Amino acid sequence: MVTSNGLTRIAVDAMGGDHAPAEIVAGVVQAARNGDVQVMLVGDSEQVEAELANHDTSSLPIGAVPSEGAIAEGESPITALRQKPRASILVSTGMVKNGLADGCVTMGSTGAAMAAAAFLLGMMKGIERPALGGPVIGLAPRTVVIDLGANVDGRPAQLLSFAVMGDVFARQFWGVERPRVAMLNVGSEASKGNRQTRETSELLSESRLNFVGNVEANDLASVDVVVCDGFVGNIVMKLTEGLGQGMSDHVRALLEGTLSESEVDKVASSVYELNNVVETVGGGPLLGVNGVSVVGHGRAKADAVEHAIGTAKFAVESGFIAKLNEELPRMTADVEE
Amino acid sequence: MVTSNGLTRIAVDAMGGDHAPAEIVAGVVQAARNGDVQVMLVGDSEQVEAELANHDTSSLPIGAVPSEGAIAEGESPITALRQKPRASILVSTGMVKNGLADGCVTMGSTGAAMAAAAFLLGMMKGIERPALGGPVIGLAPRTVVIDLGANVDGRPAQLLSFAVMGDVFARQFWGVERPRVAMLNVGSEASKGNRQTRETSELLSESRLNFVGNVEANDLASVDVVVCDGFVGNIVMKLTEGLGQGMSDHVRALLEGTLSESEVDKVASSVYELNNVVETVGGGPLLGVNGVSVVGHGRAKADAVEHAIGTAKFAVESGFIAKLNEELPRMTADVEE
Repeated sequence: MVTSNGLTRIAVDAMGGDHAPAEIVAGVVQAARNGDVQVMLVGDSEQVEAELANHDTSSLPIGAVPSEGAIAEGESPITALRQKPRASILVSTGMVKNGLADGCVTMGSTGAAMAAAAFLLGMMKGIERPALGGPVIGLAPRTVVIDLGANVDGRPAQLLSFAVMGDVFARQFWGVERPRVAMLNVGSEASKGNRQTRETSELLSESRLNFVGNVEANDLASVDVVVCDGFVGNIVMKLTEGLGQGMSDHVRALLEGTLSESEVDKVASSVYELNNVVETVGGGPLLGVNGVSVVGHGRAKADAVEHAIGTAKFAVESGFIAKLNEELPRMTADVEE
Repeated sequence: MVTSNGLTRIAVDAMGGDHAPAEIVAGVVQAARNGDVQVMLVGDSEQVEAELANHDTSSLPIGAVPSEGAIAEGESPITALRQKPRASILVSTGMVKNGLADGCVTMGSTGAAMAAAAFLLGMMKGIERPALGGPVIGLAPRTVVIDLGANVDGRPAQLLSFAVMGDVFARQFWGVERPRVAMLNVGSEASKGNRQTRETSELLSESRLNFVGNVEANDLASVDVVVCDGFVGNIVMKLTEGLGQGMSDHVRALLEGTLSESEVDKVASSVYELNNVVETVGGGPLLGVNGVSVVGHGRAKADAVEHAIGTAKFAVESGFIAKLNEELPRMTADVEE
């Protein structure tokens, strides 16, 4: 999986995200300098060259791979995939498929990244669509919430697969031995919730997972894996981001004049960052696809890009994909038994 | 609707809530002193008398009505209603039914309050179960979120009725002339979401409401009424409460030592309160039942109880129930046309 220089190779979509290509390239330079990783910048050659010229990249393991165009947020991913076969996200993902990279990273359209990964890398057995999961609540930094928006009509069997993937995530990324898995619900009693949660809870109870029951939204940090459908997970993530922004502004206004500007800024920024985890600390791997593809926040800046590259590198080196492929059929077997 | 002394009469469940009866009685005394309202305290006579003895209630319009027992959070409301026919919530709600009170207020079990209201006051035409709605996001203090937990399998026709009730709420309570109604969704585009949201959006588009499309969870303050099923609404409310608690603790820890204790406390409390609206500012009326029944937060203290009594009084005096009964059939007609 590694090149002759021994470094893990990550293809990075230089054209995706609100601050592309400048912040993407800056993040890549940081990662190449600090991260023990080889990075291939995939994008419009002229733009990428121009940005690279702003940095001292001599002797850094950075390569450039040309692509044509990018898929914007809001474009239909499927249509765009057909119309822009050389788009940066397709070329990046294609490098993973062809063995030219060990993993890829994008800050661009999540829908496009999922479509590209599903199409080029393929889905794991039993998984219909890629899922998104990871720690999105700064106050619960070691809690995976899954799914975060990819699967908005989650059926119980799908939610079981989310639970399995969250379980592997917590074990591989954080070394949690026996992750506590819970169903996000409106009450802690087993009788609470809707048909989806009750049926899913039954499946989870019968699985090999360490299912601890329901968890309410004000108590997410009490478990390692929070299972929910993508509709609910997306609301959780965006509400947290919105409240973080609002609380940050609120605290700033309250403190103005009582502390120095830099102290006020420190507190306000801390509140913001704690609630905007994906934006500030990078992104997470698409789950259920046969290859490492990390998707970050559109607003990501250089530090977050560097972190996302680190996440991709870790996923590659820890054998995350192989582990998921090993665990998913075991869980499916449980349910079918 | 009023007594011979001209005051609106509110029956208050003295036994419901974490701080009952002490804080309930304290809140009732405040309301009777400041609120231009007559209050009937419904509860165990000895306990209520003992609490009242701690206050100077001479010349205040406070009465006491005996009840036996209370229905706890977590008890099955339906079973409890049968087994405890003299429970405080049933006696309070019964007073509204019998014309002995114009409205009632409880800080006890929401499920019990809903069951009592549905059973004793009856549902409005076209409504199957009471809904809960109100401003639950302090950063969006003039945005009704509906439903908040009563209806966890909301069908599109139910969600339309939530929208109508939210619309009447915004008009009656806040004087918004033409409330902007939106569907809580995972994206702003009409194609986003699941089957439930797409079907509901269609119904809303065809209604007489000022439907403005989808709203994402980080942007709730941009509209007057946010429609969602009770599962999602409950997650929104509880996540907000949990983040408020966590952020309050976080800010307190960050500020410790930099400001005086009272200043730190002021900022931390403000963050908490802004995210725990129901606990700190009272509660909201059950929607869709034929009578005024206000349900508050279990943790409510005296100020919140006083505020909830004010909300009940306002609902009575503004003719909220009559207005809902007038609007609901109009909207049903739209859909059936």
